[in-house]
Amino acid sequence: MKIITLLTDFGGHDPYVGIMKGVIFGISPRVEVVDLCHGVSPQDVLEAAFLLHCSYRYFPKGTIHLVVVDPGVGGRRRALLAEGTHGYYVSPDNGVLSYLFTGGEIQRVLEITAEEYFLHPVSHTFHGRDIFAPVAAHLARGETVDRFGRVTSSYICLPVPAVERKREGHLAGSVLHVDRFGNLVTNISAADISPFRKIRVAVKQRSIDGLVESYESLKRGEIGAILGSAGYLEIFSSRGSAARILKAGRGAPVRVVVTP
Amino acid sequence: MKIITLLTDFGGHDPYVGIMKGVIFGISPRVEVVDLCHGVSPQDVLEAAFLLHCSYRYFPKGTIHLVVVDPGVGGRRRALLAEGTHGYYVSPDNGVLSYLFTGGEIQRVLEITAEEYFLHPVSHTFHGRDIFAPVAAHLARGETVDRFGRVTSSYICLPVPAVERKREGHLAGSVLHVDRFGNLVTNISAADISPFRKIRVAVKQRSIDGLVESYESLKRGEIGAILGSAGYLEIFSSRGSAARILKAGRGAPVRVVVTP
Amino acid sequence: MKIITLLTDFGGHDPYVGIMKGVIFGISPRVEVVDLCHGVSPQDVLEAAFLLHCSYRYFPKGTIHLVVVDPGVGGRRRALLAEGTHGYYVSPDNGVLSYLFTGGEIQRVLEITAEEYFLHPVSHTFHGRDIFAPVAAHLARGETVDRFGRVTSSYICLPVPAVERKREGHLAGSVLHVDRFGNLVTNISAADISPFRKIRVAVKQRSIDGLVESYESLKRGEIGAILGSAGYLEIFSSRGSAARILKAGRGAPVRVVVTP
Repeated sequence: MKIITLLTDFGGHDPYVGIMKGVIFGISPRVEVVDLCHGVSPQDVLEAAFLLHCSYRYFPKGTIHLVVVDPGVGGRRRALLAEGTHGYYVSPDNGVLSYLFTGGEIQRVLEITAEEYFLHPVSHTFHGRDIFAPVAAHLARGETVDRFGRVTSSYICLPVPAVERKREGHLAGSVLHVDRFGNLVTNISAADISPFRKIRVAVKQRSIDGLVESYESLKRGEIGAILGSAGYLEIFSSRGSAARILKAGRGAPVRVVVTP
Repeated sequence: MKIITLLTDFGGHDPYVGIMKGVIFGISPRVEVVDLCHGVSPQDVLEAAFLLHCSYRYFPKGTIHLVVVDPGVGGRRRALLAEGTHGYYVSPDNGVLSYLFTGGEIQRVLEITAEEYFLHPVSHTFHGRDIFAPVAAHLARGETVDRFGRVTSSYICLPVPAVERKREGHLAGSVLHVDRFGNLVTNISAADISPFRKIRVAVKQRSIDGLVESYESLKRGEIGAILGSAGYLEIFSSRGSAARILKAGRGAPVRVVVTP
Repeated sequence: MKIITLLTDFGGHDPYVGIMKGVIFGISPRVEVVDLCHGVSPQDVLEAAFLLHCSYRYFPKGTIHLVVVDPGVGGRRRALLAEGTHGYYVSPDNGVLSYLFTGGEIQRVLEITAEEYFLHPVSHTFHGRDIFAPVAAHLARGETVDRFGRVTSSYICLPVPAVERKREGHLAGSVLHVDRFGNLVTNISAADISPFRKIRVAVKQRSIDGLVESYESLKRGEIGAILGSAGYLEIFSSRGSAARILKAGRGAPVRVVVTP
């Protein structure tokens, strides 16, 4: 049984996601469709890129990830089908696969050109329904990758927010995602900090000493730092929202001082 | 594999949708259940009717659409099973199928009376669980339509907001739905405007010249008009929310002047 | 086909739920995964406990309910696998099964200790992905219950808000849940009030005479009381939100005077 996941900024307010599933099941009735997340901030390509990066490893090999965060729909942006070590990725060519390109997951990229797989007439505003869902469904049904277009080496790879090493022992990163609990997920990875004996985190005038091993280690409302489930440093408030308490959101700078 | 879709105003806050799925799988374990949309504004029958109208064509023939937007639950309103060209529709008799009646999709309507298919005792407040889900599940399992009740020619068909032709070349329509992106979906269809060479759209003191072919054609924050994915004129803001910028919502009047 | 339901406080904003599904399908590809509800208020164990209590009966026997409302993740709280008359329950040991313990559904409780079923390395913040989802998936795949740990008689059962009988004919209860429509679901059950001929409900200075049989019995905006779909007294406003009109939320006291 093939899996197709859906990652979009469509929210739960409209039938857009449901319609895509209708199209998929019409082409490939035996596929398993999984909602990866529909809560990406509207048209926020880099947020979607980060969430995909945190998620794809947890799906079975061969899973097809369909990403529709697509502010350029109907314009000149191209459509991509990327083949990776873990799975397949069907998306607009707008940088939504940037972390996967950078991280080495992607092995081969095709520009989707095979219009015979599209729903016609193709609308100006909903390629999720008319292009991406049908392509993913035909792929799930067994069509070979090469049928959908031609290999390309030109595609958009956005610069992903990188950790800077300011001076010896000083790391400068930022918040990449705020989750439902108000946890601030940063771009500072386990590899960045794990070699060090002591760390101190600074965010929004607040200084946090060391990492804790569980949310519960702190008293209610205290701010702490922890290694989160995606492998990145997270700033949290025990039973509260760090985002609200610190008034910090995506892009907020986070500094770490490490001592070997 | 049969598909049952769910279109409700239950949101994501409560287990109502999950409970309906439990009931369905208890009766018909091999069905595919698809969330069409649970974000209908509470008790907004006409909004649900419009969203269903925009969606049903994209599902395989024979799909069963279960609609539970049901302010009259527990009262005297009846329950319907409608047979259409594309699919089946299980819903309260409150007008939620109005667009399908008007548009010619529905071929036959039954009043659901076969209580042996209901969950007993039937509650006063949740017929989605006790009546509609079990009926849809038994239908998916292979029960014939006629087992559920008797054909009726009396059912509620609400007037759907129509486009008025004020005078030669002047169309008066309105906003039917605001989507997550703040796009204003109107009731002015492709057929209403496509014969014309030039169009001008007026909404909330704002005048928009012509249609564009993609959101990207405009600069960030500009307001434009486009033919949307459901086949209706939409007013949008490039990378912004037209609803917020124009302070326009459902029901807002939209005028179009066309030139042959 | 086995069913696994998911009840969490993860909302729709993040890919946490999607990731858990990826883990489940990786282990048990043929399972049916049902979202019971992801809208539990963040870290509100008792709300989740109540919603599970209202829902589990509607799923086929043998359904596996996975509950991840887990403020103590990464700390010393244990993980449970409970065997009930209707289904199986995989959850943190934090009281989220309290209604099921109290109500007699649970027959046997195991502490989950079989780390060979976990995803390694186990994170400090997402046991839904690393412990609960894999255990549920292996159980769905046919592993016997006893493989996951050892039977325990020590687990957390929180006191569930009980109805007090103040004096003859006076019941004092409270609001347990506010649903999307603003209905106030109380802990006063059908059994508490059905033996009585007349009842009067008092909430937030408002006095309500008797129960109605449908929301429609009242005029738009009026406040009424009804026996809700979960078998509890609910306070509602016809086509409005009782929660908003009465400014009442979870925990608000509700009094009932009954006359035999």
